[in-house]
Amino acid sequence: MENKIFVFGHQKPDTDTIASSIVLANLQTALGKNATAYKLGNVNKETAYALKTFEVEEPQTLNEVDENCDVMLVDHNEFAQSVNGVEKSNIKMVVDHHKIKFETKEPLFYIAEPLGCTASILYKLYKQNDVEISKPMAGLMLSAIISDTLLFKSPTCTDEDKKIAEKLAKIADVDVDVYGKEMLKAGTDISEFTPYQVINIDSKEFSDKNARFEISQVNAVDLDSVFSRQSELEDAIQKEIKEKNLDFYMFAATDILNANSKIIAIGNKANTVEKAFGVTLNNNTAMLDNVVSRKKQMLPNILNNLD
Amino acid sequence: MENKIFVFGHQKPDTDTIASSIVLANLQTALGKNATAYKLGNVNKETAYALKTFEVEEPQTLNEVDENCDVMLVDHNEFAQSVNGVEKSNIKMVVDHHKIKFETKEPLFYIAEPLGCTASILYKLYKQNDVEISKPMAGLMLSAIISDTLLFKSPTCTDEDKKIAEKLAKIADVDVDVYGKEMLKAGTDISEFTPYQVINIDSKEFSDKNARFEISQVNAVDLDSVFSRQSELEDAIQKEIKEKNLDFYMFAATDILNANSKIIAIGNKANTVEKAFGVTLNNNTAMLDNVVSRKKQMLPNILNNLD
Repeated sequence: MENKIFVFGHQKPDTDTIASSIVLANLQTALGKNATAYKLGNVNKETAYALKTFEVEEPQTLNEVDENCDVMLVDHNEFAQSVNGVEKSNIKMVVDHHKIKFETKEPLFYIAEPLGCTASILYKLYKQNDVEISKPMAGLMLSAIISDTLLFKSPTCTDEDKKIAEKLAKIADVDVDVYGKEMLKAGTDISEFTPYQVINIDSKEFSDKNARFEISQVNAVDLDSVFSRQSELEDAIQKEIKEKNLDFYMFAATDILNANSKIIAIGNKANTVEKAFGVTLNNNTAMLDNVVSRKKQMLPNILNNLD
Repeated sequence: MENKIFVFGHQKPDTDTIASSIVLANLQTALGKNATAYKLGNVNKETAYALKTFEVEEPQTLNEVDENCDVMLVDHNEFAQSVNGVEKSNIKMVVDHHKIKFETKEPLFYIAEPLGCTASILYKLYKQNDVEISKPMAGLMLSAIISDTLLFKSPTCTDEDKKIAEKLAKIADVDVDVYGKEMLKAGTDISEFTPYQVINIDSKEFSDKNARFEISQVNAVDLDSVFSRQSELEDAIQKEIKEKNLDFYMFAATDILNANSKIIAIGNKANTVEKAFGVTLNNNTAMLDNVVSRKKQMLPNILNNLD
């Protein structure tokens, strides 16, 4: 029997990372390899909803790999976002849609495309290899596209992602809009989370020579319910600013049905946010119309207005 | 009109690099892009033979690119092997079959497979994009496979390279064996080269903590003719050893018809070569049966026997 292959996505897994791990392991198995999907951390509620809907089991957790392990990476390539020991393992394949910072000693399969979602690339690999896509695999790939593109509303979404999603929806036998909204909604339930947990669901720190700041984002279907906790969220944000010595902190609750974001911005340089989006902060908050993507909208606008 | 795209391979171009540049530019043009192939240095005699046979013009030389240039890389990915300024350019695509050491700021197309030749990957891209392969393009891709695999004799050659070569030979309307030998022979004409030029046709320096050494390789159809110049080649080698402070130098003339290599090994640690290949040097020379690949055979055997 061939060496076992460990297939996994990035730390702090999202729906694309978990779905793509399972789907690539399934494709490799169909091609005769001994491949198994793993996760590097707990799955979120949105992903759990997708797995339950399509009756697919959650992968086991992987803590580290060693130099004897054959591995395949999905939805990431930078070692800093990967499993412990990945730099010594035998990387056989990478399937990803992010910028690249990567190095290996041996030739390998590396398949990256500038699409909205890793699962869209995997769909094309099934077609190229002439492997049939089962209903559960179609459901997971569709869930990943819906998640990464916020139901096609994110500027990261391409025409190709949309077309692939339509084909997958037929195989998965679901109405994209109905299922997509339910899945996204499942991921917005933050009622059991502490304020600290809420602002750390998906938070990234950035810095340039002028400022150090953090942008945190949560998906929501009811902005009022998120902002009913504004006071305790601000306390948690203030604590982060102090501990990390940040110039400002922007928390964005993104309305996934209407494709807007309502923000809280706090810190010495919080006025950067006002300039970046042409808004005035009122009680530390503002509404950003048509802004949903941290990568393509929030971050570039802020970076262009730092001083 | 869309931005012009510059398509090119590595410095010191070989047949795969030139052919793949032309072939990818052709594919991108068929897909509606404004793409042009370039070379980073003079084409060798083997490549010139392939271009003449299939009536394809040699690309223009590219000296540098700037930050406004859209570029696509073939047959390499490391910036050290690429054009001046590549690190600031907009890299849109990489198609390659080497190990990876790569970094960009934006997502892009990156397609690597562990095959014998970049052109084999390009053949698959034509198929995936449903673009017809013309006779000249088939001829160039076939030439690249023959060159990189030494007419399928190198251990770097995969079954997939062979199958693709057969399909390309039909489109190109040539007998693979007859054309392949003629093309490889065309690259072995070193009669006009000085001894210094001969040993530097394809030479790479290596080092580990125990030794610094160089392995030079030329293709040949007549080993006797190469070794009739042994004395002057040894003078050139001695000079390199002294100038670069090498522990030893191995020059290999690879018989491309019989898949053997006859070597000259000189230097304080030349006995490493004896241990590495289980041979005894006689008048500084030895015959290495079935050894043709520097990457997969010569280098690993030497590295395992350094002390």
